[in-house]
Amino acid sequence: MSTRLPEAAFDERLAAVRDRLAETDADAAVWFGATSIEYLTGFHHVPTERPVALAVTDDRVEIVVPRLEVERVEPNPRIDGVHSYFDYPGDAPLETVAEMLAGLDTDRVAADADGAPGVMGYEGPALSAFVEVDTQGWVARMRWEKSDAEIDLIRESAKWANLGHRYLADYTEPGAHPATVSQRASMDASRAMLDALGDRYAVRVRGDGPVHAGYISGHETALPHGHTPNERLSEGDVLVTGASANVDGYRSELERTMFVGEPSEEQTHYFELMLEAQTIAIDALGPDVPVAHVDQVVWDYFEEQGVTDLAQHHVGHNIGLGGHEPPYLDRGWGEYDHVEEGDDVIRPGQVYTLEPGLYTEEYGYRHSDTVAVTEDGTETLTTFPRDLESNTIRH
Amino acid sequence: MSTRLPEAAFDERLAAVRDRLAETDADAAVWFGATSIEYLTGFHHVPTERPVALAVTDDRVEIVVPRLEVERVEPNPRIDGVHSYFDYPGDAPLETVAEMLAGLDTDRVAADADGAPGVMGYEGPALSAFVEVDTQGWVARMRWEKSDAEIDLIRESAKWANLGHRYLADYTEPGAHPATVSQRASMDASRAMLDALGDRYAVRVRGDGPVHAGYISGHETALPHGHTPNERLSEGDVLVTGASANVDGYRSELERTMFVGEPSEEQTHYFELMLEAQTIAIDALGPDVPVAHVDQVVWDYFEEQGVTDLAQHHVGHNIGLGGHEPPYLDRGWGEYDHVEEGDDVIRPGQVYTLEPGLYTEEYGYRHSDTVAVTEDGTETLTTFPRDLESNTIRH
Repeated sequence: MSTRLPEAAFDERLAAVRDRLAETDADAAVWFGATSIEYLTGFHHVPTERPVALAVTDDRVEIVVPRLEVERVEPNPRIDGVHSYFDYPGDAPLETVAEMLAGLDTDRVAADADGAPGVMGYEGPALSAFVEVDTQGWVARMRWEKSDAEIDLIRESAKWANLGHRYLADYTEPGAHPATVSQRASMDASRAMLDALGDRYAVRVRGDGPVHAGYISGHETALPHGHTPNERLSEGDVLVTGASANVDGYRSELERTMFVGEPSEEQTHYFELMLEAQTIAIDALGPDVPVAHVDQVVWDYFEEQGVTDLAQHHVGHNIGLGGHEPPYLDRGWGEYDHVEEGDDVIRPGQVYTLEPGLYTEEYGYRHSDTVAVTEDGTETLTTFPRDLESNTIRH
Repeated sequence: MSTRLPEAAFDERLAAVRDRLAETDADAAVWFGATSIEYLTGFHHVPTERPVALAVTDDRVEIVVPRLEVERVEPNPRIDGVHSYFDYPGDAPLETVAEMLAGLDTDRVAADADGAPGVMGYEGPALSAFVEVDTQGWVARMRWEKSDAEIDLIRESAKWANLGHRYLADYTEPGAHPATVSQRASMDASRAMLDALGDRYAVRVRGDGPVHAGYISGHETALPHGHTPNERLSEGDVLVTGASANVDGYRSELERTMFVGEPSEEQTHYFELMLEAQTIAIDALGPDVPVAHVDQVVWDYFEEQGVTDLAQHHVGHNIGLGGHEPPYLDRGWGEYDHVEEGDDVIRPGQVYTLEPGLYTEEYGYRHSDTVAVTEDGTETLTTFPRDLESNTIRH
């Protein structure tokens, strides 16, 4: 059981960005992005209008935070120096960043952006108003391939997603409210997870549990990003579910198309088409396979079946600290401007959702599984059964 | 009871941006920001790596969406034309935006940003690669003052936040898990809200309920953005709660410092200091008062009491479609670079959280209430009692 990244993971990540830094003319690398800062240091914060900036030089890791994060970062063993401003806009966060960089004898940096992002109304100067700035996307690219330790966390996440999903199925019955079933399954799976993992589990949520399981139902399923309707369940309803759990910031994705009572012939037809498309995608995934290929084979199948007009999105995406991460399993990936040489193929350590969908005017049909790419194949991390019988709820 | 913005609200908003557009040399106004697009059209979407762009000319409202949002926007009565690309990166979203603008005979636009934001790994060209771009922040500024209809929604939100908070207090007892209490209160308040409001309520959540109530507990409260610890409650625990409900995208903020069993003398001391600070802030708020003043009077009180070293943030912020919106109640607001003339004072229609906090090494103390500024005073929208006795949970 692994529910926390080992200290060595941060040593390796910091060493990797220092290697890249050494190849540039910059004296420091700087990140404003919350996920990148979390990736390098383990310091997780809720992004608000108060910017946070991390600087890494060849021998120091320093950070600028608002006053309200000081006690959170000070004990962090990966951070050597903490600078803070009281609040925004009474203080000028970027001036504190400039002071930190001056203290590090830095006048040229490689940064993930030329200033802090405009979250919740923040507005401020460019970093290049203070130092020379080259831009880099090192961490964004490093995150594509997960280490074994990271995949362990996603595997642990999938376990509790599976429990949440089991509860969803168990609590579903005609007359129940979909929101209540969702919240009850989330609560019970969260409670089991917290009690099972105990002290080892590093909580990342506020006023909530670590597992979220829920569904949209009825005609809302015809929208890939539909909402849970304010309508109690009835026989014949289609559900599109989703379950995940937060394990040290990492997540998995498990989605199922389910039926309340016996599905109609038409519903069965589209379910089976979708299921076959997902099987094709799972079978196509593997090391050295072109990223575009996995989406293309599903598209070819949809063409053969004459249902391309019912498809509304590509087949999946990489997942980890972010809910969606590149590469995206998209048949246009090979022509994508931002792909470097060699990045057009799938690599071991990448973890993908596989989620081809079909959407009629009435209902949507989509499963999603989380699959890790290994040296010689794949490992499906989510375990809830995919077949029609297991996804038909009878009472 | 009002749970949905009236159609006239969108007419007024579109008219207001058209008035601003008429004062420029641009032929169209463009927005990439999800909240601005929601504000102008009522179309709510989950931002992903797939950009969305709205264009408003003197007589047309058109939008670019990924394929998976088409069925959501087509019935929208405020949108005259829908353009879509299949997915990203197989398609080039900004080229679809350029085609839409060409169809609108536009070669100069006033946009909220020079291209789509880099959400979930999106990378793409600047809008200025296609048309001339001036930047504007019209909607961000318009959102500062809420209409009566918007305040009705926030008032409705506060009602259900209050119920969620009542359940939090009722379900709290030594031995209970703080995550489970939080999730149970959220579930029960959501169920009551959905059943009470019925069809009139426009759901905005996926696999979840509209009310979130929860708390952080124990020593995590010493961190303003602490996490819910994996530790069951015991006598003597301090709780810092939070409750809100989503009503047509709008929210309120209700937070309380509570005690499990009798508070200690020290806990009582800091609670009473915090309570007095919040009363001072509530009393100071009003139309034409300098924004900075509300924070300053609290700071003056903290200085008088010798506790400025226990303060970690300013007193509050505007709230509405966004969880934090400017103006921020910050004693530096008057010197803030981005304040236009006249925007240094509080205006009727602004809705503020008032939440001064004190943080010792052991525990945090913070209430937050949501208060609307009226023509001649204020109206406190959140109603849970603030006093020590009401926030002490005895069993």
